[in-house]
Amino acid sequence: MTYQPPIEEIEFTLRHVVGLDRDMAEGRAGDLSDDLLTAILAEAGRFASDEIAPLAAGGDKEGARFSDGRVTMPKGWTALYKAWREAGWNGLAAPAEHGGQNLPVSLSVAIAELWNGASMAFGIGPTLTMGAVEALEAHGSDHLKTLYLPKLVSGEWMGTMNLTEPQAGSDLSTLRTRAERQGDGTYRIFGQKIYITYGEHDLTDNIVHLVLARLPDAPEGVKGISLFLVPKFLPDEAGNPGPRNDAFCHAIEHKLGIHASPTCTMIFGDGRGESGEAGAVGWLVGEENKGLACMFTMMNSARLMVGIQGLGVAEAAYGKALAYARERRQGRANLLAKDRAEPASREMVPIIEHPDVARMLLRMKALVTSARAIAYCCGHAIDRERHAQTEEEARFWRERANLLTPLAKSFPTDVGVDVASLGVQIHGGMGYVEETGAARLLRDARIAPIYEGTNGIQAIDLVTRKLPQSGSQSVRAYLAELREVAERASERNEAGFGALAERLHEALGDLTETTDQLLQWLNEGRMGDALAVATPYQRLFALTAGNVYLAKAALADEAGSARLALAVFMADSLLTETSGLKREILQGGENLSAAREALQ
Amino acid sequence: MTYQPPIEEIEFTLRHVVGLDRDMAEGRAGDLSDDLLTAILAEAGRFASDEIAPLAAGGDKEGARFSDGRVTMPKGWTALYKAWREAGWNGLAAPAEHGGQNLPVSLSVAIAELWNGASMAFGIGPTLTMGAVEALEAHGSDHLKTLYLPKLVSGEWMGTMNLTEPQAGSDLSTLRTRAERQGDGTYRIFGQKIYITYGEHDLTDNIVHLVLARLPDAPEGVKGISLFLVPKFLPDEAGNPGPRNDAFCHAIEHKLGIHASPTCTMIFGDGRGESGEAGAVGWLVGEENKGLACMFTMMNSARLMVGIQGLGVAEAAYGKALAYARERRQGRANLLAKDRAEPASREMVPIIEHPDVARMLLRMKALVTSARAIAYCCGHAIDRERHAQTEEEARFWRERANLLTPLAKSFPTDVGVDVASLGVQIHGGMGYVEETGAARLLRDARIAPIYEGTNGIQAIDLVTRKLPQSGSQSVRAYLAELREVAERASERNEAGFGALAERLHEALGDLTETTDQLLQWLNEGRMGDALAVATPYQRLFALTAGNVYLAKAALADEAGSARLALAVFMADSLLTETSGLKREILQGGENLSAAREALQ
Repeated sequence: MTYQPPIEEIEFTLRHVVGLDRDMAEGRAGDLSDDLLTAILAEAGRFASDEIAPLAAGGDKEGARFSDGRVTMPKGWTALYKAWREAGWNGLAAPAEHGGQNLPVSLSVAIAELWNGASMAFGIGPTLTMGAVEALEAHGSDHLKTLYLPKLVSGEWMGTMNLTEPQAGSDLSTLRTRAERQGDGTYRIFGQKIYITYGEHDLTDNIVHLVLARLPDAPEGVKGISLFLVPKFLPDEAGNPGPRNDAFCHAIEHKLGIHASPTCTMIFGDGRGESGEAGAVGWLVGEENKGLACMFTMMNSARLMVGIQGLGVAEAAYGKALAYARERRQGRANLLAKDRAEPASREMVPIIEHPDVARMLLRMKALVTSARAIAYCCGHAIDRERHAQTEEEARFWRERANLLTPLAKSFPTDVGVDVASLGVQIHGGMGYVEETGAARLLRDARIAPIYEGTNGIQAIDLVTRKLPQSGSQSVRAYLAELREVAERASERNEAGFGALAERLHEALGDLTETTDQLLQWLNEGRMGDALAVATPYQRLFALTAGNVYLAKAALADEAGSARLALAVFMADSLLTETSGLKREILQGGENLSAAREALQ
Repeated sequence: MTYQPPIEEIEFTLRHVVGLDRDMAEGRAGDLSDDLLTAILAEAGRFASDEIAPLAAGGDKEGARFSDGRVTMPKGWTALYKAWREAGWNGLAAPAEHGGQNLPVSLSVAIAELWNGASMAFGIGPTLTMGAVEALEAHGSDHLKTLYLPKLVSGEWMGTMNLTEPQAGSDLSTLRTRAERQGDGTYRIFGQKIYITYGEHDLTDNIVHLVLARLPDAPEGVKGISLFLVPKFLPDEAGNPGPRNDAFCHAIEHKLGIHASPTCTMIFGDGRGESGEAGAVGWLVGEENKGLACMFTMMNSARLMVGIQGLGVAEAAYGKALAYARERRQGRANLLAKDRAEPASREMVPIIEHPDVARMLLRMKALVTSARAIAYCCGHAIDRERHAQTEEEARFWRERANLLTPLAKSFPTDVGVDVASLGVQIHGGMGYVEETGAARLLRDARIAPIYEGTNGIQAIDLVTRKLPQSGSQSVRAYLAELREVAERASERNEAGFGALAERLHEALGDLTETTDQLLQWLNEGRMGDALAVATPYQRLFALTAGNVYLAKAALADEAGSARLALAVFMADSLLTETSGLKREILQGGENLSAAREALQ
């Protein structure tokens, strides 16, 4: 089966859970209209299912290939990328002045779900370009903006982010790549970077590397990091790619998944460029030694986009498993529970009829749908900040985006792995055979909880940086909003809503109590307690928020009871985790410390 | 890093949790002595780490290769298997009269953990041989026993199990492979089987297929299935392989993992044999139409052995992640929580110092250790049945083995996937690169929850067949034993034990309450309710039993507090799930049925 884009579900979520309907009505969505929204989603869905999805399996099997400094993309991928960018999909949320379409971020992440659902290995590439656009827009000189932004917004050139070095993964303070000032305002870059996604390929005429490096007189640690733009080919003033820069791919990784996405080791400045002397020519982005601030600009949206990768794969895995479970016949209803010796006189039933299979599918659907809501709402907070009328409003939404970012990165990526794994399980033996495609989704999904800040780092960020924002007012305002949805469910005088509201209130109580405890520990400087339980807290937070969003969808749905049933199912079989999580969280770090001696 | 066999932990578990010490003292362990136990484990550990583990990565990369009906094993594997069987490892638990060593099953499964930890793809093969030995021993004619058992027990020949057909996976009632009676007492077999593990290879001179097929006049459904022995080469009376039988491998699967384990499509009877006419020559095992009963003979131990596969991979993943976390330095202590701008003046710490990494490692350790106890205790129940003095005692232990089998299959295999996935996470970006080996463990582990009865089917088996055994006396006796351990923890007047006992009693209360409810539903014929929540019940059961076993280990450990700390950690961060699981279980199937409309 090819990928079935969940267009109706996406549109419903955008309009009624995220609130794009209200944004459109109140003039916060630019030129977006009802019809345009529907048309864009339909066309993106068509492109994803008809153009991208058919190349996903081949891209995985063939993979990106490396030879002599060059990376060759799988068969058909260069034409695919060209068709994709020529259709205008690259600059969806980019500013109009550089050729973008200035559409809401929430819409652009929804559409990115489609690319990643069709092929995560394809969907990743443009994410990096988008990061480069954001960094240049916020921090680049006019010269750099004029020369690079139009090409990057159109997708004619792609961007990369060069952070990681062998000794500097999650901790950037030990970066060694160095930059030397030249007389002409440019810099020369020397060093090695690893795990550079789309660091080299043949999709575009040029590649624009953003590289973190250290100046000779820079302070130690992260206060001494600067950001440089290093193009693969040095363009002339008209933007025509010229001499080959001294920035080469040294090798690509043989990975568990996303085989068509080249993960490169990049070497800067070993003297192979055409510019005469050693050193990759680079231009400073922002100020010297302020590189980390530039990176932070990109970080929220980069993390959100990784969340979208997990979401896209999860949705694809769910759709695939659902189709299989409807088609595959095995056993009569309840056969396995009855007398096995009974003759198989009746017809076999589709496996979706078996309660355990239905349970797995519902779990997948609840996880995917709640993850989608969290991720889109994070994108929406970025939109709201952009359209803020006052600094106070801007701050409110900036902090909301900050708060939701670790949840929007970690929850959908954990869900991606869990749901893809359930998808394999539903396929049975077929799921373990690569030909079926279910296993590829699991292999692809597994990177997302790791890169762009591991999910453990997201949890630390959530607890130690986001909870204390504005003296905890940001998180409290969010919790109040969630409670308001639960209140509305309580007041809705219909079967199902009452019990659902009760469960939501209970989970919100668990979330509030643990939030208070964590804030208290932070105030008391009991960092060890906070860090020890950050991950279970992050899950408690996401499960609760996600289930509230399912309830919000049910409240908005006039068409029937399916959304209510899903919200109730989640409350009864996933939100049941919150009491145990609360218990674990409130213990803090004591038992963790005590148990360390068991690690042998 | 190569595989580090956890010899001391295994020996401790066997002696003090399983109770092999008492068995040896009370004469229930044959010739096994203290010294022999220690010596066997040490030598098996050496073979696993020094001989098998070094070939695991190559076996994965090269894989089993298929060409023209033949399967070639990866480089070095034929010599490895020869060395392994010549060292006498194959017939460890087999009866002495056929050349086996008659050692306890609990010890043989412990040793099988080592083979699977070193390479699951290697460890699987002998499991199938063991299944053939058991089936022949229990149901084979004297002629078949004399001819085949010595070769199978020594491992000179290997065995296979041929059950699955494309239309008959979990439900065997629709088998189509047919068997025709010949005048000479033999049968001719015609049909296609899929997913046949080690169905063809070049490790041995002959392969002994056990094949489920249907006689022309057989009743419909599972009452019409017979079991046949079909050798690859037809042996003469002296056991020398003769003419090639009409049983050929048609293709092997390209799978997510266990690449060195050939998963074959077998075609029986398409006329390519050397016996003159079409049809694979086979001999009946047991009685006509009683094939399923023969399969059931093998099923308990086959399911247990799959659990051991999951356990072995999980332990390997834990050991690998632990070694990495001690070596890899990243961040200063609590760096990520403090001011990032602070200069990195102090040395970086091993990542095991970060609380979230320690939490993941402890979770892995707790899951692995509790899964090991459950699996070994299941093997021990089989031992106790064999040594029973009365039919009553035999029945007690047979039912105990029956009860523990679904837990021993499902929990360690779920743990295999979860722990291998955490192992990838701890390795960060390195974990996603195949070279590291962490990803291979995840790929290998993923099949175990699927084959030999999916874990969903194990849950159904647990609830609908095992709980009602002897009018629920079997499960009640087991729960009483678990409670007795919790009581002993209560009575132990030492710090830590009291709180642990309280948590265990609480979880045991949840387990008892849900068990009662499920039994009541079964009595009332409310099968839909029981089936809907069988999987969460299976998890609740395994978590509780597993944590009780950790407590039992802590009670027996005079050396220190590490085992107590692990039991407490599990109680505080995994056993916390039980209250939510109970809540989910007690709801039964109502919400699941209501939520089906959300599956779209």
